[in-house]
Amino acid sequence: MPIASHVAIIGCGQLSRMLALEGMRLGLRFSFVADAQEDTRCIDGFGTVVRWSRGDSIADLYQALAEPACITVEKEQVDLELVEALQAHCPVDPNPAAFAACQHRHREKQLLDRLSIPSASYVYNQPAAASVEELSLPVVVKSCRHGYDGKNQWVLKTAADVTAFDEQNEDDYIVEKWIPFDKEISQVSVRSQNGDILHYPLAENRHESGILKASIVPAPAISGDMAKLAQESLSRIMQDLDYVGVMAMECFVVGDCLLVNELAPRVHNSGHWTQQGSYTCQFENHMRAVCGLTLGDTRNHSVTGMLNLLGTKAPPLDQLAPTSTVHWYNKSVRPGRKLGHVNLTGVDHTDVQAQMAAFDLTD
Amino acid sequence: MPIASHVAIIGCGQLSRMLALEGMRLGLRFSFVADAQEDTRCIDGFGTVVRWSRGDSIADLYQALAEPACITVEKEQVDLELVEALQAHCPVDPNPAAFAACQHRHREKQLLDRLSIPSASYVYNQPAAASVEELSLPVVVKSCRHGYDGKNQWVLKTAADVTAFDEQNEDDYIVEKWIPFDKEISQVSVRSQNGDILHYPLAENRHESGILKASIVPAPAISGDMAKLAQESLSRIMQDLDYVGVMAMECFVVGDCLLVNELAPRVHNSGHWTQQGSYTCQFENHMRAVCGLTLGDTRNHSVTGMLNLLGTKAPPLDQLAPTSTVHWYNKSVRPGRKLGHVNLTGVDHTDVQAQMAAFDLTD
Repeated sequence: MPIASHVAIIGCGQLSRMLALEGMRLGLRFSFVADAQEDTRCIDGFGTVVRWSRGDSIADLYQALAEPACITVEKEQVDLELVEALQAHCPVDPNPAAFAACQHRHREKQLLDRLSIPSASYVYNQPAAASVEELSLPVVVKSCRHGYDGKNQWVLKTAADVTAFDEQNEDDYIVEKWIPFDKEISQVSVRSQNGDILHYPLAENRHESGILKASIVPAPAISGDMAKLAQESLSRIMQDLDYVGVMAMECFVVGDCLLVNELAPRVHNSGHWTQQGSYTCQFENHMRAVCGLTLGDTRNHSVTGMLNLLGTKAPPLDQLAPTSTVHWYNKSVRPGRKLGHVNLTGVDHTDVQAQMAAFDLTD
Repeated sequence: MPIASHVAIIGCGQLSRMLALEGMRLGLRFSFVADAQEDTRCIDGFGTVVRWSRGDSIADLYQALAEPACITVEKEQVDLELVEALQAHCPVDPNPAAFAACQHRHREKQLLDRLSIPSASYVYNQPAAASVEELSLPVVVKSCRHGYDGKNQWVLKTAADVTAFDEQNEDDYIVEKWIPFDKEISQVSVRSQNGDILHYPLAENRHESGILKASIVPAPAISGDMAKLAQESLSRIMQDLDYVGVMAMECFVVGDCLLVNELAPRVHNSGHWTQQGSYTCQFENHMRAVCGLTLGDTRNHSVTGMLNLLGTKAPPLDQLAPTSTVHWYNKSVRPGRKLGHVNLTGVDHTDVQAQMAAFDLTD
């Protein structure tokens, strides 16, 4: 395939913003597909924005996007019919099969099971009362769709919780064994059009209320065997899906075991550290992959930390130190919303952890 | 001064583009001042562009720029009356005194002489015939204004050259002794509003026909004493000018001597390597300085090379290696024009030099 110079992105959030900022630097041009009501402030000025709703012509959309050479996506909950139909006009990467697998928790579990990649035991679409007989309490119920940042998830700890859940009459969910994990880590990797795969070092992540608060890289106190296992697992997933682009795999560490918790078919919050700490950031590498280019070096040159700015009203520029910087998304402010992040580099984990602890995240 | 969130830049070329790309990431907003005929493709979409010609109202300009909190400049040949008048509305950094000194070669020489910083011997505004009696051939004649990328410079090697030059009836020029230098290096440094100064490592530069072709950092085979001398010299210049922002000082190395050839009151082509090889690039540090922020770490984490793309018709994305990347300016293509650059990182100078030699710069 010739090298693409015009890329369309489905979605107009902060991931599109950061993809476009890196891509413009490489000389790529952009256009964007927005939902009818989607806020486009993150990517204002970066290229034509075309609104699309289900039922609108795909051919007209492709024309209005100015006939991009390829199309990529910033969100897993993309309309599958849209991405499948756009394939008639140009390559779409990651491909629709990846979204189909990752945007539905049961299909994601089936993919992992088929590839013999361990994850938490689960039961699909059975009443919680029946599920806990098999899994025993506590369990986590996860809606198969629209679950991100802890949304549409319920932890059931008692028999009363189980009864209350079953009375809600939810459908399309999985009940998963609660995992008392030692730590949460994520593997972010990238696969090129010719099948090359490069892995970023593992990140250790800290979530609160289901939302990522912080990452530190390389994940401390992880054995070489476990790091290798994470890389091999994500390689097999990407190869199986014939995946092109950046993909993230969130995992629980339990003793010597690695359990996959979630796959994200896109650049990922736990890869934002790469903007300061790696030779090539995840956004550049995603653009390199979907445009048919050679991938960039994914090694880290520093120990690096990332702190999400949740609900912060303005970029905390007054707190910048020589080793820290801010990425601000230009979104409208709402309490708890991801509005930016801080990246910090340091000589070792102690140094970076001290910098992270000292950064004031209150407004 | 409160932290600025809206910055205006005078000039719409690639330096403005790269300043804005870094600044937008920090959450800053931008507007731009363009000359009547200036091409604005480099910064299209990045903010309001206001055309201004001498004689137009400065108050109206400031309003049309949407009242920025501070103003900076991407070119040394800025209209001094413009920057001085804008100071009535908001801080302008670097300040007009820096432009006054750097945009006129005789004033630049006088500044260096006053600070006892060595540069090539020279004679101001005397006939070349008289000048060569003092300096002896060969000499370089440099127009005091509008000399960059080797423009408006003449090397006089013979008596016939001298006669021919004097017959041109040029005015406002200096005649400089020709320096048979061992190498060309440059010091890029940044000074904050509170007077902190940080220095990037020295770059060794290779020019052809007066245009920068390539840089490598850290400059090989430079003594610690010479590196320290370069830093001290530029520190004294910035302190003397009460300079805020990034400044570049191009020098000749002659044996153990360092002769300053040129000062640039702005981010500089020989600092483009910082985008890949340093913890904080010169563009971010310039924005940090003019916005009153703490400066970012200027150390290099890798040996780094930079190659200018002169007249190249399209970004050479097909040549990217894991350790190289492209910065493309989105300018219209003209033969010999600076249209982008390639940055390369490596484990040592041999590695980087080999990568630079292998990169095909022909179209």
